Amino acid sequence: MKATIERATLLKGLSHVQSVVERRNTIPILSNVLIEAVEGSLRLMATDLDLQINDSVPAAVDQQGSITVSAHTLFDIARKLPEGAQVSLSAADGRMAIVAGRARFSLGTLPRDDFPVIAEGELPTSFELPAETLKQIIDKTRFAISTEETRYYLNGIFLHLSDDVLKAAATDGHRLARVTVAKPEGSDGMPDVIVPRKCIAELRKLLDEVDGSVGVSLSSTKIRFDLGSAILTSKLIDGTFPDYSRVIPTANDKILKLDPKSFMEGVDRVSTIATEKTRAVKMGLDRDRITLSVTSPENGTAAEEVPGDYTSAPFEIGFNSRYLLDILGQIDSDLVEVHLADAAAPTLIRENDKSPALYVLMPMRV
Amino acid sequence: MKATIERATLLKGLSHVQSVVERRNTIPILSNVLIEAVEGSLRLMATDLDLQINDSVPAAVDQQGSITVSAHTLFDIARKLPEGAQVSLSAADGRMAIVAGRARFSLGTLPRDDFPVIAEGELPTSFELPAETLKQIIDKTRFAISTEETRYYLNGIFLHLSDDVLKAAATDGHRLARVTVAKPEGSDGMPDVIVPRKCIAELRKLLDEVDGSVGVSLSSTKIRFDLGSAILTSKLIDGTFPDYSRVIPTANDKILKLDPKSFMEGVDRVSTIATEKTRAVKMGLDRDRITLSVTSPENGTAAEEVPGDYTSAPFEIGFNSRYLLDILGQIDSDLVEVHLADAAAPTLIRENDKSPALYVLMPMRV
Repeated sequence: MKATIERATLLKGLSHVQSVVERRNTIPILSNVLIEAVEGSLRLMATDLDLQINDSVPAAVDQQGSITVSAHTLFDIARKLPEGAQVSLSAADGRMAIVAGRARFSLGTLPRDDFPVIAEGELPTSFELPAETLKQIIDKTRFAISTEETRYYLNGIFLHLSDDVLKAAATDGHRLARVTVAKPEGSDGMPDVIVPRKCIAELRKLLDEVDGSVGVSLSSTKIRFDLGSAILTSKLIDGTFPDYSRVIPTANDKILKLDPKSFMEGVDRVSTIATEKTRAVKMGLDRDRITLSVTSPENGTAAEEVPGDYTSAPFEIGFNSRYLLDILGQIDSDLVEVHLADAAAPTLIRENDKSPALYVLMPMRV
Repeated sequence: MKATIERATLLKGLSHVQSVVERRNTIPILSNVLIEAVEGSLRLMATDLDLQINDSVPAAVDQQGSITVSAHTLFDIARKLPEGAQVSLSAADGRMAIVAGRARFSLGTLPRDDFPVIAEGELPTSFELPAETLKQIIDKTRFAISTEETRYYLNGIFLHLSDDVLKAAATDGHRLARVTVAKPEGSDGMPDVIVPRKCIAELRKLLDEVDGSVGVSLSSTKIRFDLGSAILTSKLIDGTFPDYSRVIPTANDKILKLDPKSFMEGVDRVSTIATEKTRAVKMGLDRDRITLSVTSPENGTAAEEVPGDYTSAPFEIGFNSRYLLDILGQIDSDLVEVHLADAAAPTLIRENDKSPALYVLMPMRV
């Protein structure tokens, strides 16, 4: 292969693919990016065997061909080349030469035939989602994804059709986030799927460059996102997401309404006193008076009153302040509803009954 | 004590003192800031037993008195209080109450009498240095300070009078940085001192807020910097700095002159190929043609020609690319002189024979 490409174009393509490549690999070729020079463009591809990204960038190709070369090294080189440089890439005799201006590099290569490709198989369900909708789904749920590897079936976002809408949910057993969006055309018969955390992270990064719609195709084992020139293909998590709908309380009758911003600032302030171990913040609910407080044997005590509408019976409840802040950070309006039952029951948090997102938080004993 | 202070004023004072306080302390009171409420101001003080900072901020004092309280906790609280808040501080019965708006905190305290103070003793030498000069001394030498704890006498900047000028030097045995400034009035008879790394770091941060001059007072064991409201007092390193002047080459006769920017970019680019272990970059010097190159068995090879003036005999020499970049990053002009002897001899780098800073770099075998 032999091609010439503008440095910024190469850099952009490589920035998309290189973050899929893990820093350490036991299989050497997984450190590499596959470069296929075809007429008028370079096709780039990287994989970690679970997640694969394909991208395509315009280039002047003199000689077609394919090769694989270290993704991070090539990315670092492209990053350090001067702006506006024309980069010549050519592969021969097990090496790839990179020349730009007075700088020249020679990198070891591995043959393209050894490069593993995720076999997509059939992806019978296929629909489009506006990029904005996909961003919203991810932003409002990903913080609740579990990082416990033993609960691998919680290590992603659960997508499923239910009640004629598309629902996305994530939970780590302590908190749950769920977003509901209109059922996309073509999604009928879609299997329930769990999209892994790393795929979500890469997808979210790519979405920042996408306007319009994203094509989603999936089977029960694979999912593919078409984002213009970039295509992300991921294996799905092979597990059963718990029936989370049972933990969403429907009969919590103590309703608290307050300004999420002053609530959040209050929680953040009183939790200054909390230690890493005990992140509990206590909420004392009294008629239209909410008192946040933290007591730490090591550090001292903190309390703050925040204004709120509350007319039910007074009681106290505790929450993990970090989890509460995560949820409040997702509320865009100037009013949030907190639906409480008692000090031990799951609590529902949402903007209002029209909002696509809802959150469930388990209380802590305080 | 009882005082009221504007949140921004308190925050600024605490930001100065809190970074002296270590995160972990075996002696509990070292985690605390000493607050002395005197008429019209709060005096703040923190120490790690080697370095002490005193600062003073205006406050409305209702009741004079002193107390010590966790520096990081108080700083975090002040940081999170709303802008413009009036903060009331009052100490009684082993607690300090902090009240601002609807938020109130109570922190454990320790009595002020237990707070350790560095005994300055006599500081017979005393002079002023422009803040800009002190910044220059630090910026151009601190990167060369050794981090090897066994060579404790290299863990700081060496200040001494010599040839009727004030010299500042730092070295880690591989590279040396030295800055020369005019001898300040009053510095006659100044002992040679080694100012520890942590004092340098805190001093540098404080200098960003200082215009004009800084008062420097010192003995052979202590140094004090007066920076307006903040005063930094540090123990000096009790050791002997090596006679570094012997390693500054004076007879290197191969002179290379080049643009530090393109030189730096070239070194940065070819070192992309270098691994963490071997950071060596090779310079091939030929008549007016300098070739930088790196060979890594793992990654490949890289080479770049940079323009330069060189008329001596051709030869090759290797340097640690990181060290070379550190030095080149300090060169402000558009020309740098590299004085070479041979592939094993210390190399001198400087802007020109008038420049206050000079650097010596040991070559690497390549």
